[in-house]
Amino acid sequence: MHHLDAHTATAIDQALFCYKTCHGMAMTHCLEMGGRHAEPAHLRLMAACAEICRTTAHLLLMNSEHGKHLCPECAEVCEACAADCERIGDMEPCVAACRSCAQACQALAH
Amino acid sequence: MHHLDAHTATAIDQALFCYKTCHGMAMTHCLEMGGRHAEPAHLRLMAACAEICRTTAHLLLMNSEHGKHLCPECAEVCEACAADCERIGDMEPCVAACRSCAQACQALAH
Amino acid sequence: MHHLDAHTATAIDQALFCYKTCHGMAMTHCLEMGGRHAEPAHLRLMAACAEICRTTAHLLLMNSEHGKHLCPECAEVCEACAADCERIGDMEPCVAACRSCAQACQALAH
Amino acid sequence: MHHLDAHTATAIDQALFCYKTCHGMAMTHCLEMGGRHAEPAHLRLMAACAEICRTTAHLLLMNSEHGKHLCPECAEVCEACAADCERIGDMEPCVAACRSCAQACQALAH
Repeated sequence: MHHLDAHTATAIDQALFCYKTCHGMAMTHCLEMGGRHAEPAHLRLMAACAEICRTTAHLLLMNSEHGKHLCPECAEVCEACAADCERIGDMEPCVAACRSCAQACQALAH
Repeated sequence: MHHLDAHTATAIDQALFCYKTCHGMAMTHCLEMGGRHAEPAHLRLMAACAEICRTTAHLLLMNSEHGKHLCPECAEVCEACAADCERIGDMEPCVAACRSCAQACQALAH
Repeated sequence: MHHLDAHTATAIDQALFCYKTCHGMAMTHCLEMGGRHAEPAHLRLMAACAEICRTTAHLLLMNSEHGKHLCPECAEVCEACAADCERIGDMEPCVAACRSCAQACQALAH
Repeated sequence: MHHLDAHTATAIDQALFCYKTCHGMAMTHCLEMGGRHAEPAHLRLMAACAEICRTTAHLLLMNSEHGKHLCPECAEVCEACAADCERIGDMEPCVAACRSCAQACQALAH
């Protein structure tokens, strides 16, 4: 990604990693665990987080200014998802991925 | 979509309608109902069906030959999703959308 | 989509129609026409508009509050895309789809 | 991704890397270069390759059997994209990413 500055490249990588982690864990780990892991609000938040991360990466890869415009909302959803995963427990990889992505998006938004 | 033949335009509309129905029902109706509606295998099949329909439409909209190449697999996933929704019950809109999409994709594949 | 209020259902339909129109026209009409239609900035804006509309619809279909949070940015990209399509000319379907989607997203954002 | 076997995890990483490379280069490098890089057929193939890689990864992350069903078509599009990028020249990162993804998808398909 030689055409992108370092902050943008970092945000893309964090956003794709967060997408991978949220989507993968929601559709395997959370569904299999059941109970609090399968609460509708939790699964919807995981899915929303995965989708907004995927799309933020998509726009940033084009070097579109609108990618940066999505960063504040992407960071907010990631923070909300990290907090919900901490509440539920046994979701460490998702907490870490969401926190890192939120940080990278905030760095780009400012 | 004046640039597309009638079969392709129909498949796009059916695929986007099936995406909308499967994704919307999975993330609201199925999660809220719980029980059989929230079985991991059912929710994964709904999500896989929504995603492959979304992508088949995306390629067909570009008039890419690879869109037609996805049609047999899209039809197969739609048929599997329709059958699973019939087994579970109370999923009529999804059964109908999946069957219509499968038919439109089969018409395009041949 | 019986689980959604009327404003949300309208925004989903307008966003998916705008996605279809922008993505389809960019990858066929604009690329074939060349000249101003194929300027990098125009094609990137069309692609960004298609993607953000697709994702706004995805989140709204889940009845996620974060879908509404995307609406102001979705409306802004749609307005920018409509203006650019008017500047370039011969893009009427895209202008109309973008304007309608922007309006539906603004109605939902407030 | 502790829930996935090694071949699947590799295919996911290669598919997301190929998506990133094809989408990013098409929307920046190819559009800026113009000429053969901006031929409609080339850009459509790049976009189709990016999209099918993104979706193959999405289904594989869910551990859906339908992810494996997409692998032969994903490999075919990647091979076609690699060949077209070699023909055009100055597309080495895309050639390499497409070849690696095709190989990982073929390993999973069998």
